Amino acid sequence: MSEKTLTGRIARDKIRLMQVPRPPDGVVERFKRLGDCTGVISDTMDELGIAGGVIGASVLRPTMPGTVMVGPALTLRNILQRIDPLQGARDHVNRMAEFECHNLATPGDVLVIQGVPGISNMGGNSAQTGKRQGEAGAIVEGGVRDVSHQRAVGYPIWASDITPVTGKWRIEAAEINGPIVIGGVQVHPGDLVVADDTGVCFVPRDMIMEVLEHAEKKARSEDMRVKAIDSGVPVPDVLKSGE
Amino acid sequence: MSEKTLTGRIARDKIRLMQVPRPPDGVVERFKRLGDCTGVISDTMDELGIAGGVIGASVLRPTMPGTVMVGPALTLRNILQRIDPLQGARDHVNRMAEFECHNLATPGDVLVIQGVPGISNMGGNSAQTGKRQGEAGAIVEGGVRDVSHQRAVGYPIWASDITPVTGKWRIEAAEINGPIVIGGVQVHPGDLVVADDTGVCFVPRDMIMEVLEHAEKKARSEDMRVKAIDSGVPVPDVLKSGE
Amino acid sequence: MSEKTLTGRIARDKIRLMQVPRPPDGVVERFKRLGDCTGVISDTMDELGIAGGVIGASVLRPTMPGTVMVGPALTLRNILQRIDPLQGARDHVNRMAEFECHNLATPGDVLVIQGVPGISNMGGNSAQTGKRQGEAGAIVEGGVRDVSHQRAVGYPIWASDITPVTGKWRIEAAEINGPIVIGGVQVHPGDLVVADDTGVCFVPRDMIMEVLEHAEKKARSEDMRVKAIDSGVPVPDVLKSGE
Amino acid sequence: MSEKTLTGRIARDKIRLMQVPRPPDGVVERFKRLGDCTGVISDTMDELGIAGGVIGASVLRPTMPGTVMVGPALTLRNILQRIDPLQGARDHVNRMAEFECHNLATPGDVLVIQGVPGISNMGGNSAQTGKRQGEAGAIVEGGVRDVSHQRAVGYPIWASDITPVTGKWRIEAAEINGPIVIGGVQVHPGDLVVADDTGVCFVPRDMIMEVLEHAEKKARSEDMRVKAIDSGVPVPDVLKSGE
Amino acid sequence: MSEKTLTGRIARDKIRLMQVPRPPDGVVERFKRLGDCTGVISDTMDELGIAGGVIGASVLRPTMPGTVMVGPALTLRNILQRIDPLQGARDHVNRMAEFECHNLATPGDVLVIQGVPGISNMGGNSAQTGKRQGEAGAIVEGGVRDVSHQRAVGYPIWASDITPVTGKWRIEAAEINGPIVIGGVQVHPGDLVVADDTGVCFVPRDMIMEVLEHAEKKARSEDMRVKAIDSGVPVPDVLKSGE
Amino acid sequence: MSEKTLTGRIARDKIRLMQVPRPPDGVVERFKRLGDCTGVISDTMDELGIAGGVIGASVLRPTMPGTVMVGPALTLRNILQRIDPLQGARDHVNRMAEFECHNLATPGDVLVIQGVPGISNMGGNSAQTGKRQGEAGAIVEGGVRDVSHQRAVGYPIWASDITPVTGKWRIEAAEINGPIVIGGVQVHPGDLVVADDTGVCFVPRDMIMEVLEHAEKKARSEDMRVKAIDSGVPVPDVLKSGE
Repeated sequence: MSEKTLTGRIARDKIRLMQVPRPPDGVVERFKRLGDCTGVISDTMDELGIAGGVIGASVLRPTMPGTVMVGPALTLRNILQRIDPLQGARDHVNRMAEFECHNLATPGDVLVIQGVPGISNMGGNSAQTGKRQGEAGAIVEGGVRDVSHQRAVGYPIWASDITPVTGKWRIEAAEINGPIVIGGVQVHPGDLVVADDTGVCFVPRDMIMEVLEHAEKKARSEDMRVKAIDSGVPVPDVLKSGE
Repeated sequence: MSEKTLTGRIARDKIRLMQVPRPPDGVVERFKRLGDCTGVISDTMDELGIAGGVIGASVLRPTMPGTVMVGPALTLRNILQRIDPLQGARDHVNRMAEFECHNLATPGDVLVIQGVPGISNMGGNSAQTGKRQGEAGAIVEGGVRDVSHQRAVGYPIWASDITPVTGKWRIEAAEINGPIVIGGVQVHPGDLVVADDTGVCFVPRDMIMEVLEHAEKKARSEDMRVKAIDSGVPVPDVLKSGE
Repeated sequence: MSEKTLTGRIARDKIRLMQVPRPPDGVVERFKRLGDCTGVISDTMDELGIAGGVIGASVLRPTMPGTVMVGPALTLRNILQRIDPLQGARDHVNRMAEFECHNLATPGDVLVIQGVPGISNMGGNSAQTGKRQGEAGAIVEGGVRDVSHQRAVGYPIWASDITPVTGKWRIEAAEINGPIVIGGVQVHPGDLVVADDTGVCFVPRDMIMEVLEHAEKKARSEDMRVKAIDSGVPVPDVLKSGE
Repeated sequence: MSEKTLTGRIARDKIRLMQVPRPPDGVVERFKRLGDCTGVISDTMDELGIAGGVIGASVLRPTMPGTVMVGPALTLRNILQRIDPLQGARDHVNRMAEFECHNLATPGDVLVIQGVPGISNMGGNSAQTGKRQGEAGAIVEGGVRDVSHQRAVGYPIWASDITPVTGKWRIEAAEINGPIVIGGVQVHPGDLVVADDTGVCFVPRDMIMEVLEHAEKKARSEDMRVKAIDSGVPVPDVLKSGE
Repeated sequence: MSEKTLTGRIARDKIRLMQVPRPPDGVVERFKRLGDCTGVISDTMDELGIAGGVIGASVLRPTMPGTVMVGPALTLRNILQRIDPLQGARDHVNRMAEFECHNLATPGDVLVIQGVPGISNMGGNSAQTGKRQGEAGAIVEGGVRDVSHQRAVGYPIWASDITPVTGKWRIEAAEINGPIVIGGVQVHPGDLVVADDTGVCFVPRDMIMEVLEHAEKKARSEDMRVKAIDSGVPVPDVLKSGE
Repeated sequence: MSEKTLTGRIARDKIRLMQVPRPPDGVVERFKRLGDCTGVISDTMDELGIAGGVIGASVLRPTMPGTVMVGPALTLRNILQRIDPLQGARDHVNRMAEFECHNLATPGDVLVIQGVPGISNMGGNSAQTGKRQGEAGAIVEGGVRDVSHQRAVGYPIWASDITPVTGKWRIEAAEINGPIVIGGVQVHPGDLVVADDTGVCFVPRDMIMEVLEHAEKKARSEDMRVKAIDSGVPVPDVLKSGE
């Protein structure tokens, strides 16, 4: 089979994987059925001895509150160019490569960008393109822009900054589908991203099934506790229910 | 009368008061009738010579914008445990005591937590339990989680952080109903909490009536000024109305 | 023509201009027709070699998301008083002058305040008065208060802080319609302010027409790209459309 | 034996211990013989599974670089008063209690203060008194002042802030010899403090001997590696020496 | 008498005073005799009801530790230019005016700059010129550079940042000898600056004698306390000595 | 010629260059003869249109003030591991590779580490080894430890953090001699590092000679200005000398 036509925005040898490893069939749907579950997944990873991997929604703020997003990570690392951006704007040489990511995306992927703060790593057209390619949405440590356009096309983003300043003449893509660091957490392509109004969890690729099964059990026990509270059991007994 | 059954999450001698002092009858309702009044109350405390006691909504952000909350403070001080949290998760020893607070709460209380940043000091089940116990809501300097659940049960929180990371194996309760510090403000159990979209005020327990009466007068004078503005009086005259 | 009656809150010689220079007729409407355009305007200024002038919405947060605001800047610089604010509250000497700005405002003006952080530089009555005077809204680096009142009267603000603490006894107005600095950007009276959910742009007064015409062209080319994306052209070709 | 005469600056029931537990004889000297050893002790605590307990010198900066300090912690927790400090200065009611700590100190103790930022928690006379009482020095999360006086009397402090602003009318002592939190680390009275130019370690009271013996072994192995480097062994072999 | 020849770096009408008001004769020497006295002066201002005016040495760090500096403030307010600095460097138009300040300085003045962070507001030649003109030194909120040169000529500076990046094409002088804000403190020309290793105090011009006399009394009482400590009086009695 | 024996701490394919490109002969000495020259070099890069590349000494603080360091960059990028560090300490698997850098170093190289904050990226043995290998010193964005040992062996470092916490079980090396980002500046292997008490400059590899020659001219003109100041020329004329 012939390889995909590339955009050329980043050298071919800086794309470490052409496709992100897929999670097992049905996994995304089962995670979604857990609802707003980043708390349960964070607890599960604690209990299974999986370190780190959780970032709060006051650090990576959702642009579309109320959304739950689940999917495998397609990773991009951006760094600052070392140029005069006004000269760059005149020369019009764009070194961003998140469109290459959209080009490579498999439906359901979550674009995860280790970006640059105070500068947009992704705008409205980019979100619209990601949406069309079937991506679930994006996680961006750094700035994004055109948030109204992004919301209008229904492409949710958890981002640390919002700013109109373009990255086109300021940022360059360093690597696609290499390991990246988001909020102090190492993320690999294919790690499962789970995001809701409370924050973002990154589940290591080879622990996805174990985390899912443990989390489903916890969620059932949580449901029992919710009912116990509703039924009026005394507070000391609530603590014993479902722990 | 026999003492309440406790949850045992915190040593009995670290609970300084079993019940928060109540504000005079009708006071909460009169404060609520003032509407979005943290500005008026802050001004009143300035004018009465009561220092500090005011924190902005960009520091303690409301999880349910549009809510006005009034009630006496039930205080909790949390500190970090000194353990490996992954070991703690295996050992499953939970040292948080905000459920003890729910247990002790009198309807109308506001739970005020001097918490730990970047870690959840209160989750969805806890909010649901607080709601059931009749609490008005909570103020948390530190993280909270399960914000969708908290909103769904109608338990408003003003918090500095939102994060999925549990405090169960990371935090321990140091004291209930002792003096605490929130945003640089010393708060005592029974101080009256007033919170709206602009921020949070803590009215010292023994100044509640004085503040209320002064604030009611100011609110009437504010109403006159609002009408003066609407009626088109020249700007220099607006400044004279109701000051 | 006789000069306006002043409020006296600031010495006459600290008001550098009694009226802000007007943008050419029809300009505000044409900018507004561009929609959520801070991204396009930021790119335009880059391409025309106009440095700086752009601040993100995660720094200056809109109090009324979904609003697009355009108008010439009426500038105010506030500084801290050096007094004991509780003494000031007793003495009741108010040194804020944003009401003088409302007094001087021409319909369509945007009040831009280089304010003091953690203290309110503008409250609900002030917003109501600004609205009545026909202002488009405000940009405040520093605190504002009474945000519910401000929203109720339909006066949008992009501000860095929200807090109930009054500036009346804490702040003094240093200058009206002098040059100010907002988010590291020098702003002059009459510079055109454009603000949306992504952030705020300040277009230098003598570049307004040039920026507008360039931005209108870019917006058309953006529209073509949006259509190209919708029509399903391959990603590498999207990048070529409309650049 | 009769109890010590107290200064009365803090209520007697807020002093949890009248004397800090002593480390075993000779332990302080053995730690001191390790030299600049916070790195070795931090590694030792990692290897023994003791979580946390280490803070860097860019957070708690030494006022007397080149000093190594070892001793058991005498703890003090300070909080902000809620008053107008200028009123407090007129009324002259001093609520700080670090002199009570000096009063209680046993020679060799290290005063560890969970203090208030931006305000002095300890000045020159206090340092001079601590020195006279035989204290080894202090660790202060918060401000200190009169650093020249403190250096002149030879009382080393690792502090986060330096400021002339007195705490006398701003701070009150909440507790002596209770658990405190320094740089996110829980510290108990009697925990062993070790501080040098690289930072501060807190060794839990009941692990002191275990840490010491392990650290002495590591230090010997470090010496061997230092010699291996000096003797010119190839870099890949350096890594194998003494690990 | 003819006016001084100006450098022309700033418009004449932005120089509010050609000479800073002098403190009474002998005052500077008497303050200097107090030694490292910012603590005493801060306390004195508290006791006399003079609000604010004190900044810690961890915010404004001394470039020459061990120095005590006293003198009246000559003020400068710098703001960012709005240009492409690389274009500015080509065009070589320098808009900084701290040399105008040196030009206007009377021996003994302290140059106090409300500067720009992360950019140099004053370099080595500038310090050398200030020294030659007889200035006591400088206070800079913002960056300075060439610190070795500055130390070599014996011109002490308390600055918040150190950086090689020039302000020549990035900064412009907005005003000389107007009111400025340093660390949240309003400073006027002629206010007395006192700086040592603990921090910086600004004494309002019309309170200089009152502060001096009060401070001298306090210093004597401090000396008594220092002796009391040395002489071994019990700690509870130390607190009573000289307060 | 056979390739160097490697330490194996990092996969061979993550070492992008086995040796850093050398600057032309004599260049390092000529830069050193310029003295404390980061200001002059920063100005030169501005004037030659070379963007960025300068970081202040209040961000990257020198561990050995008074040192001037010049040499080509050998780059290392570190990232956080995703493990429980206490588990890592038990398992004793060290993934740091700055020793591999020492192994690869050519005398005169400067090790430049894009490190991890709050954790040591380089300790005393590492500095001693770097010194032995002839390195000029290091630049570390992130923590370092054992600063006394580092000073004792005469290995200067400009670092953002100092902390005893080891990176051995917390950090892993991602790449050697790839492009890195330090303080927002993109640095490539072979870029010339110049560091003094005012800060750090990175001169792009292919601009070294041009920058040197321009800087030498500027330094001569600076000398003339220094003499002009000493000789007492009026301030307005100082500005004209040597600009």
